[in-house]
Amino acid sequence: MRRVDCIAALCAGFFVSQVLAQAVPARPGYGDVLATAKPADWRGVDVENTLYLDLPAGRVVIELAPAFAPRHAENIKALAREKYFDGLAVIRSHDNYVAQWGDPDEKNPRAVKSAKSKLAAEYSMRFKDAKDLPPFARLRDVDGYAPEVGHSNGFPSARDPKTNEAWLTHCYAMVGVGRGTEDDSGSGMSLYAVTGHAPRHLDRNITVVGRVVQGIQHLSALPRGTGALGFYEKAEQRVPIKSVRVAADVPPAERTNVEVIRTDTPLFAALTEALRNRPGPWFKVPAGHVELCNVNIATRIAPAR
Amino acid sequence: MRRVDCIAALCAGFFVSQVLAQAVPARPGYGDVLATAKPADWRGVDVENTLYLDLPAGRVVIELAPAFAPRHAENIKALAREKYFDGLAVIRSHDNYVAQWGDPDEKNPRAVKSAKSKLAAEYSMRFKDAKDLPPFARLRDVDGYAPEVGHSNGFPSARDPKTNEAWLTHCYAMVGVGRGTEDDSGSGMSLYAVTGHAPRHLDRNITVVGRVVQGIQHLSALPRGTGALGFYEKAEQRVPIKSVRVAADVPPAERTNVEVIRTDTPLFAALTEALRNRPGPWFKVPAGHVELCNVNIATRIAPAR
Repeated sequence: MRRVDCIAALCAGFFVSQVLAQAVPARPGYGDVLATAKPADWRGVDVENTLYLDLPAGRVVIELAPAFAPRHAENIKALAREKYFDGLAVIRSHDNYVAQWGDPDEKNPRAVKSAKSKLAAEYSMRFKDAKDLPPFARLRDVDGYAPEVGHSNGFPSARDPKTNEAWLTHCYAMVGVGRGTEDDSGSGMSLYAVTGHAPRHLDRNITVVGRVVQGIQHLSALPRGTGALGFYEKAEQRVPIKSVRVAADVPPAERTNVEVIRTDTPLFAALTEALRNRPGPWFKVPAGHVELCNVNIATRIAPAR
Repeated sequence: MRRVDCIAALCAGFFVSQVLAQAVPARPGYGDVLATAKPADWRGVDVENTLYLDLPAGRVVIELAPAFAPRHAENIKALAREKYFDGLAVIRSHDNYVAQWGDPDEKNPRAVKSAKSKLAAEYSMRFKDAKDLPPFARLRDVDGYAPEVGHSNGFPSARDPKTNEAWLTHCYAMVGVGRGTEDDSGSGMSLYAVTGHAPRHLDRNITVVGRVVQGIQHLSALPRGTGALGFYEKAEQRVPIKSVRVAADVPPAERTNVEVIRTDTPLFAALTEALRNRPGPWFKVPAGHVELCNVNIATRIAPAR
């Protein structure tokens, strides 16, 4: 979301405090640790599993998570490739919750061509027998919503060894699949991104397909809808979608080359620790804890080679 | 923030699912419970401890919490009464973090008259010997940041019986006092509201003075600042403050008569339970847990009497 998370800084006098912090480095801050990252601590995103949601204000880059939701990732790419979303709109901005996009005419949505309009849910997956599942870097911190939480290749996730379930968690900027009451009523024709405090009660109730790795502000700072649930009440309030493309289909010169910090490394463990116990002198009481959705997963535009 | 929290509803087919939910009421939803509220389940806000931050887009209503931060509540009212904030600006909109307002010229801020420009911090208070502290309605749910969490007269809060500390927590829409490195470097001349996922690591590190009970969208949906830490880089990007007033000083006809749900009642316990275990048929897996900052503290405009 941001290249470097804010370390201290509710200021009055922020820059003064930064200078002081550098003079008395009791513990390293997140930015200090991130500055030590080697090229190998970063990874690119797979262009075959990355979407560009192009809005008038700019591009939203979404990294899909086929390891967790293979059918939905596939279908959403099929939708993008048949240009399903082009000309549709962001139809909802619900304060402290989600922004949602798709067809404003929910009762008679645009017909799909090769993609599917209904798909069996992928709320969670069986992790013990899974192939191709990225390593789970478990946080030691307690979580009220799941027995175990941590990161899977850049995605916040949780798992329950007793039930053999693993799932992506509804942290800020995560992207999910709108559905009706039936489990198979979603398909990716209607998607949302979390733009407020993590609605973790949605975990395992809805298919999560990815994460916004760049441009979340083009969704999070939208005017709030004044209709029920934050839907826009008038057509002209909706934000038109210029296009949704699979990054691989976009000419290289027009791509946004996002890199994501690797989450299965000693560096990421050190970054997490820097958030768990933030440095003085600005911080007086280190929390001794970091909540899953407060772990910043750094992203950046790939440096020129 | 919202009068009625969204119950189900990431939809495709929301209205259909609502109808179904009404037909099969397995558990009551938040809205169902809130609809049973009696007039005594609501309370007004104290006009002597409520601020109106009037921006071009509308009014932000802030309820102060003098029980937790008496000196800061007093000083901020003194600042408002000497019209300190009028003509200053929202200077920062940091995505998934805070919006902050005060004097854009941090190095040479507007001089105060009767108010104080420095104030000893009020990070936490000693609750066991406190008079006038509202009852603490403890949540039974585990929390990683504090031994005990719950609500104190409409404010999310935490406490530690071992250290005899109680404090307000950095949930969405909470308002705090910007400061530099020194504990006494804040005064209320620079204030912020939480506009993203709860930055609970700030708890006990900064003085929290209240909560936005109406109009948070006028801060949370602002364009993000593109400077370091989300500060606006150009003067014209800042949002001018028309005025900040103590509600008691505003003619009754011009007041915004906000009511807040009482948090020390059986109804509030039932509301919390409705969030902890949300109703089918839309919800397939009740969370069995609600995190402190996911507890919606309902507000409304007082009905005509």
